[in-house]
Parts: sequence; C-alpha cells; structure tokens
Amino acid sequence: MSKYVIDLNCDMGEGFGMYRLGPDEEIMSYISSANVACAYHAGDPHIMFQTLKSAKENNVAVGAHVGLPDLEGFGRRKMAVSAEQARNYIIYQVGALLGFAQHAGLKLQHVKPHGALYVMAGEDRELSEVIVETIAGIDPELIIFTQEAFVTYDVAVKKGVPVVKEFYGDRGTKEDGTLVFKFNYDEVGGSPQGMADRIVRVIKENNVTAVNGKEVSVIPDSVCIHSDTPMALDFFQAVKDAFAKENIEIKPVGEK
Amino acid sequence: MSKYVIDLNCDMGEGFGMYRLGPDEEIMSYISSANVACAYHAGDPHIMFQTLKSAKENNVAVGAHVGLPDLEGFGRRKMAVSAEQARNYIIYQVGALLGFAQHAGLKLQHVKPHGALYVMAGEDRELSEVIVETIAGIDPELIIFTQEAFVTYDVAVKKGVPVVKEFYGDRGTKEDGTLVFKFNYDEVGGSPQGMADRIVRVIKENNVTAVNGKEVSVIPDSVCIHSDTPMALDFFQAVKDAFAKENIEIKPVGEK
Amino acid sequence: MSKYVIDLNCDMGEGFGMYRLGPDEEIMSYISSANVACAYHAGDPHIMFQTLKSAKENNVAVGAHVGLPDLEGFGRRKMAVSAEQARNYIIYQVGALLGFAQHAGLKLQHVKPHGALYVMAGEDRELSEVIVETIAGIDPELIIFTQEAFVTYDVAVKKGVPVVKEFYGDRGTKEDGTLVFKFNYDEVGGSPQGMADRIVRVIKENNVTAVNGKEVSVIPDSVCIHSDTPMALDFFQAVKDAFAKENIEIKPVGEK
Amino acid sequence: MSKYVIDLNCDMGEGFGMYRLGPDEEIMSYISSANVACAYHAGDPHIMFQTLKSAKENNVAVGAHVGLPDLEGFGRRKMAVSAEQARNYIIYQVGALLGFAQHAGLKLQHVKPHGALYVMAGEDRELSEVIVETIAGIDPELIIFTQEAFVTYDVAVKKGVPVVKEFYGDRGTKEDGTLVFKFNYDEVGGSPQGMADRIVRVIKENNVTAVNGKEVSVIPDSVCIHSDTPMALDFFQAVKDAFAKENIEIKPVGEK
Repeated sequence: MSKYVIDLNCDMGEGFGMYRLGPDEEIMSYISSANVACAYHAGDPHIMFQTLKSAKENNVAVGAHVGLPDLEGFGRRKMAVSAEQARNYIIYQVGALLGFAQHAGLKLQHVKPHGALYVMAGEDRELSEVIVETIAGIDPELIIFTQEAFVTYDVAVKKGVPVVKEFYGDRGTKEDGTLVFKFNYDEVGGSPQGMADRIVRVIKENNVTAVNGKEVSVIPDSVCIHSDTPMALDFFQAVKDAFAKENIEIKPVGEK
Repeated sequence: MSKYVIDLNCDMGEGFGMYRLGPDEEIMSYISSANVACAYHAGDPHIMFQTLKSAKENNVAVGAHVGLPDLEGFGRRKMAVSAEQARNYIIYQVGALLGFAQHAGLKLQHVKPHGALYVMAGEDRELSEVIVETIAGIDPELIIFTQEAFVTYDVAVKKGVPVVKEFYGDRGTKEDGTLVFKFNYDEVGGSPQGMADRIVRVIKENNVTAVNGKEVSVIPDSVCIHSDTPMALDFFQAVKDAFAKENIEIKPVGEK
Repeated sequence: MSKYVIDLNCDMGEGFGMYRLGPDEEIMSYISSANVACAYHAGDPHIMFQTLKSAKENNVAVGAHVGLPDLEGFGRRKMAVSAEQARNYIIYQVGALLGFAQHAGLKLQHVKPHGALYVMAGEDRELSEVIVETIAGIDPELIIFTQEAFVTYDVAVKKGVPVVKEFYGDRGTKEDGTLVFKFNYDEVGGSPQGMADRIVRVIKENNVTAVNGKEVSVIPDSVCIHSDTPMALDFFQAVKDAFAKENIEIKPVGEK
Repeated sequence: MSKYVIDLNCDMGEGFGMYRLGPDEEIMSYISSANVACAYHAGDPHIMFQTLKSAKENNVAVGAHVGLPDLEGFGRRKMAVSAEQARNYIIYQVGALLGFAQHAGLKLQHVKPHGALYVMAGEDRELSEVIVETIAGIDPELIIFTQEAFVTYDVAVKKGVPVVKEFYGDRGTKEDGTLVFKFNYDEVGGSPQGMADRIVRVIKENNVTAVNGKEVSVIPDSVCIHSDTPMALDFFQAVKDAFAKENIEIKPVGEK
C-alpha cells in the first residue's frame, strides 16, 4: 500500500483581547502547520505568545498569517493599499511573529496572506511580485501559501521562491480550482465523514467535484481547514481517522 | 591628547500616518544609534521601513524603542499592564523591527523602553526582570538602554545581560542622576553651545550639575538627545562641533 | 401584598467586529436597562446600531457604558488619564450613542462608567466631579449608575445630578457594600435559584450577606447582571420567575 | 454696489494625540464653517473638545467631517465597506460630535464626508442614498456638503435634504466642475492673491477656468480651503482682504 504525505494547515490565534475564535488548543493536536494571526486582522501579542507555545508543544510548524490593518473587518474588506504599503505591513507582521518564534526557539516555516489580501494578491501580479519579493527578502526559506490558480503562485514559481498549493477542505471548489469563500455544508460533502472523504480523494486521486458539478484536477501540498467551521472538531477527527485508514501522513510542508 | 568615545542616540520614526515628528532625515547624520518606534506609542510600518533605510545609509545602529499600546497618549500614560503583557508587547515590537532589520540586512543593536514603560520598569524590579529576560530571550546580544539609577540597570547587570547607561543631553538631571522629564532650556545650558558644553563635561569629567545645584557623577555609555527638542538641529550641530574640537568620537555602543 | 419595583440592567453590545460576547438578543427580553458599549472598551458602530434596534423592540431603556480607550484590555486596566481626558472620552462615547439613539428615535436614559473607569471614579473625588459635571453638561436628565459606597455617588448627590445605586446580582458583596470583581458562584447563591433568591432578598429586605459573612444593608435602585456570567440565561430566567412570584416589577429606572 | 454672501469652510481638528496638522487656531478667525474630524480619519476627543471651544469663541458653525476608519491612511484609501457599515460609521461620528456640541452649547450645522468616503459617495448612488438618509435620520436640519457634479448632490436634492455645493478654493477644477485632489499652485492662481482672485471670480461671475483651460460654470454655496495648503494663512488673509474689497460677506451656510 503506497503512502501519502500531506500538510494540514489551520488559521490559529484569531481571537483578540477578551475574545476567542475557535477551539485552538484542541485543533493544534490535529494539524501540522499553524497560520498565526499577527494582530492586524485578528490576534494580539498575548494570543500570539500562547499560540506559539501551543504549537511548540504539539510539534506544529508555524507561519505568519498576514492581513490588512482592519481588525474590525477581520481583514476581509478590500482596501486600496499601495504595493509599498502591503510590503511594509507584511514585513511588520512577519517580523512580529519572528520575535515570538525566536523567543520560543522556533523557526518560521511559512507566510500566508489572509482574507482580502490573499485574494487581492491572487488577482494582481504587481502586488504578488511585491509580496513574494518581500517574503523572500526577510528569509529566502519562508514558504508562501496560496492557490495554484492565483497569480501569486505563478510569480513565486518564476522567482524561485518556495510556494505551496493549498486546497480548502471546508470550502467548495470553483471550476478554476479556487475556493468559494462562503461555507456551505452541501458543497463539501455534507457531513464530517463526507468532508474527510472529499479530502482523501483530492490527496489520492487529485480530483474534486467543483460546485458546478465538473471534475477539477487539484494537486495540493497542503489542506486548509478553518477553526470556525461548524463542528470543526468533528471534522478534524473524521479527517484524522480517514487519514489513518488511508495511510496518509500529516507532516509540515517545510519538512517534506 | 586622549580620545573619548561615546554613543549618541535619538528617538526616531515617531510620526504616524500623515504625521511627522522631528527632522529625522537630518538628525540621522549626527547620531550613532537610532531608537526606532515600533507602532505602539508612535510609528507605523511605512515609517519604520524608511527609518531603517535611512539608518543603513548613515551607518547608524538601530534598536527597538518599545512602548505601551497607547498611540493617542504617545506611550506616556502609565497603564496597569501585567508583567506577562509587558513581555508580549516587547516581543511583538522587537520582532516587528527585527523583520525590517532582516529585510534591510541590518542587525538589531539594542532595545530601549519608551516613556511610561521606561519609568515603570525603572521603578519596578519584577517588571524589569521580565523585560530583561524577555530581551535576552529574543537575542542575548541585544543591549538594553536605561538609566544607571533605575532598577532595570541593576537587574540587567545581575543577569549578565548587556546594558547601557544613558545620559539625557537635553533634559535636566536630578540629584539621583535620573532625568527630569519636562524640557527646560535653563536646566541644560541655555543654548545649543551650553548644552554641548554640558555633554562634553559629562563625557570628559563624568560630572553634571543637577537641577538643585548639586554636582552629580554620571558615567554614560550613550547620550540621548530628542528630535523634538526645540532647535534640535542647532543642538546636534553644536554637539558635533564640540565633539570634533574635544576629540570625542561618536560610535554605536554595540561597536565599542 | 405590597409591590416592589426595580430596574434590571445588563452590559450589552460588548462584541467587536467578528466577535460576540454573551447572548444579547435573548437577554434583552429580561432586562429594563441596557448599558451599551461605545467602541472604547468593547463594541463597534454596527453592534451599537443593532443593540439600539433590539432595545427599542424590547422597550429597554438605553445608556452609555463609557470606558477607557483600551479595547485589548476590555477597559479593565487602569490608565493614568487626566480628568480632562476622562471628560473628553465620556463626551465622545455618550455622544456616539446619542447619535444612534437619535437615529433610532430613542432617548438616552443613563451613563455608566465601565471597568477600570468605574473603579477609578469610585475612588477619586476629583475624577468623579469631572465625570458627574460632564454627564450633566451633555444632558442634565442623564442618570449616573454607580455604587452607593463610591465617592461618585456622593458627588452626584451633592451636585443634584440624577444618580442610581446599583447592586451586582452576580458578584459577591464586600462589607462596604461594593462588589467583588471576580465572579464566584459560591459567593452569590451557588445556583441560578440561589442567585435569584439573594437578589429578591436585597430588594425586599435591603440586606445581603457579604463575602466575609457579615450582613450588609443595600438599597438598590437597579440590579446589574452580566451577560457573560456562566449560565446567564438560566440566571435571568430564575430572576424573572422569582420576581413574578414575589410581585417585583422590572422597570427602567428613568421611568420610576 | 451689490453684496455677495458666501460660506467659507475648512477641515479642522485633523491632528491626533501628540500630532497637529495646520494652524487651526489662527484659521478659525477667517472661516464661517468648520468641518471637524471625528477620530476616524483624524482627530481625537481632546482635539474635538478644543476645536468646538475655539469654534464657539469665533462664532464658527460646526459640522462633522466623517471618514473611513483608517487613521493611518487619513481616510484617503478606498475600503470595501458596505452601505450599512457606512451608515453606522456616520451615525457614530456625527453622534460623537453631537456630544461635544451639546456639551459646548452648540448646534451641529452640517456633515461632510471626508476623503475616500466623499469620493466613493460621489460615484455611488446607493451609498449616497444611505448617507443622505442617515444624516437626515439623525437630524433633518443637518446640511450635507458635497460637489454639485457628485451623485450625492442629486440624491440629496431629490430627497429634499439640505445640501450645499462646495467649490475648492485651493484645488484645481476639472471640466465637470469637480476638484483635482492633488494641490498644484499653478492650477489655482499661483499666489495667495491669484487664489483669492479666482475665488472672487467664482462668487461674483460663477465661472472658473478648469485645468484643461476650458471655462466652467460653478455656483458655490461654500468655498473650501484646506488648513495644510502651503502658506495657508497667507492665503486666508488674501481671501479676507479680497472679500472686504469686493463686498463679499462670509457667513455660515446654515444662517443664509
């Protein structure tokens, strides 16, 4: 029986102050890579500290989840930031997490743009070039997380910067392979088991049924599941069980 | 004729968004160490980027000027933050600047607490212990800037963490050697030349006249001058001229 | 059977952006006065809009819950703000809520300082004087919510400004009649029914057992219950049932 | 000799914390209407308090200068806010200023969207409808400031909401009568006297030369001059002198 290896990433540390979002502590035991909010779209220094501590205890690789400076909008509202401003926001956030990583004795594995920034970059070559150059300029070993169909992916490949293709395990898939932003249970299998089966199929067969019914080829390096998806823990458990059964190993993408 | 070496530090990058504070670009040519605001009490990622660029061009060593999360109050209002919260704020800010330093190909030289945090630490041994450990925990070569009379200094010495004694060139001196926070021309020499002479005397004779008229012994490793002191550029020029005449070399404290 | 009338107040709208705190919608049907967060310690304009809409639908009187500018610390960390700064923060927040009230066709009933500001005012006569004058200066009919044992109460009475004595239904009581800040089930009756009985006793007998075992006289105009107290909805239901049984009417303090 | 009456408005209170922008105190004596920043794109409660005090002393009418929640970007970056979010931001800011006005014994005269919000509304009928309805919903006497060529103007007229056509005295004019955003001395007369003459011509002849050389008809109710225009005080003095000579009276638009 052949063996598969996949990275499983999740957005972590998305609370703020008094507020919490998702069962971070529990999820940490299921995943291999944590995208840590850096206090722009979510998160604060105390949550960042706690998240890195928890990641270290669970041998989870960490990356900076960099967003727009819009806490109230959770970084989901497009803003007319210039490419230079985006560069500076990214350096600031990656740096902030670097501080926590250095203090915790960890190495940053990756950077993942969040929300509106993720999509803006995906659609804008100039912005993607700045983002890719910025990340490589901080540390050339940092891996960028994006969608294969996004221009960010093409830019990273052309510049020789490490890049990872994500598949969203809890979001529907469009015909071009990109994700549907709104969660819809029916589009992703209809149950934790259905969602897990859909992910297993992507990993083993590199195929997924898009929301319009067409078959789409997807070859992911990492699967993303959100902590605030309804029944997230049931979902993670179903994935864990399915992976065990199918001989799929979960491993940080930076270790592959 | 014997030669003296001193570090000259200045708070830099204290604007925000549209706002600017002090003639940073011009001052950069006079100093050896820049305390860079990290977007807590002042500064933003764009100003941080520009400040590191300017520091690099002028061969000025850079450090993180870490403050309380109070932009409106410029970090000058005491806040009841716990020692753990202070730790996390410092990691965040030092980290953020570390990102810009790594991107610019610079090494961070030092960390200087700002405003209320500087004073709170100076008066509170537990807070100073956390701050000193935190900074060493990020990078044991980072130098802490403080006052010799502050408990922070004692803590750093006892823990074997690099620490620098500052003298405030543009602030009056109290009998215990600490600074008077409010600027008063008469307390610091009454003119750019008078201020420069006072600094030269501290460097060469290790003595200064306190605001109560007593002579105080001060042996500084670094002299701090503020960018928003009235006539700051005249002051910096007078210091430069006086140092040239007195054979005092300005050098980053990390290179000493 | 004699009839009792009491105001029941609750902090409302304490979410921010994506985040929510407490089952506001459900609680609105139990209370007579809502203390609405004004985007300083919690809340945002969207939540404020929604909260006033819900208050109007439930015939709940609204007041401004004014806090320190510390969203991350939930307004619970003391800050060295001057009396003038406190004045301006209060005008700003009361005004902001006034905008929503005017837009919704509601009248503001009261102002309640939150968290650290509530306590700082309670201990500081000068600050209380500024706060009381500020609130009366915006609208002399605005009622101030505070503790009878706080200096704020004394100041309001002396200045002839409407003021209300609160009893905290879900917090232990100290011997001086003020609240214990940390929630402790055992100190407040041990169960929803026990909590309701304790409140009924305060209303009918004006007595409560303090955490040190002594009997304390309390004559409240309003009872405060928090939305984030564990089992809050069970608690509110128990109070509602107990009040119905004991012929205690819940009415906004401004209508009394 | 016939007499002309015009309103002269200026953005005021655009500092933040330590920072100041423009000589507000001096300008207050030249203008009839102040657009007061409400701590979104600029301003803070302390500056708002001081600005209303100064406006009252100078008999200047006040209005809310409402912007996007982007202090770092000075409200000049477009953001994908929904119409409902824009509504809530406007209620919040107008309300906040209403608090200061009530406290100072002043009445709000007008509301002027700032920066990106001003332009976004000008181009978007749905957004303009929400803005116009929101402002009228707070107080139907509030006057909206906008450009005649903006859809906001058309919406306000159709809804019967008071609206004022602005001419920008220190910005070039496009052929459609709207302003050029970037300041260019040559486009507005080349000197304080030239700028004043251009404004006098608009008031008396209702004509201005657009930046493309064409003559454009403009019938303004109010002339806007910025506090941060280079040589602003010289400019205001030249306008004052020219108005005195030409028998043009400066009067708040709400008093006309």
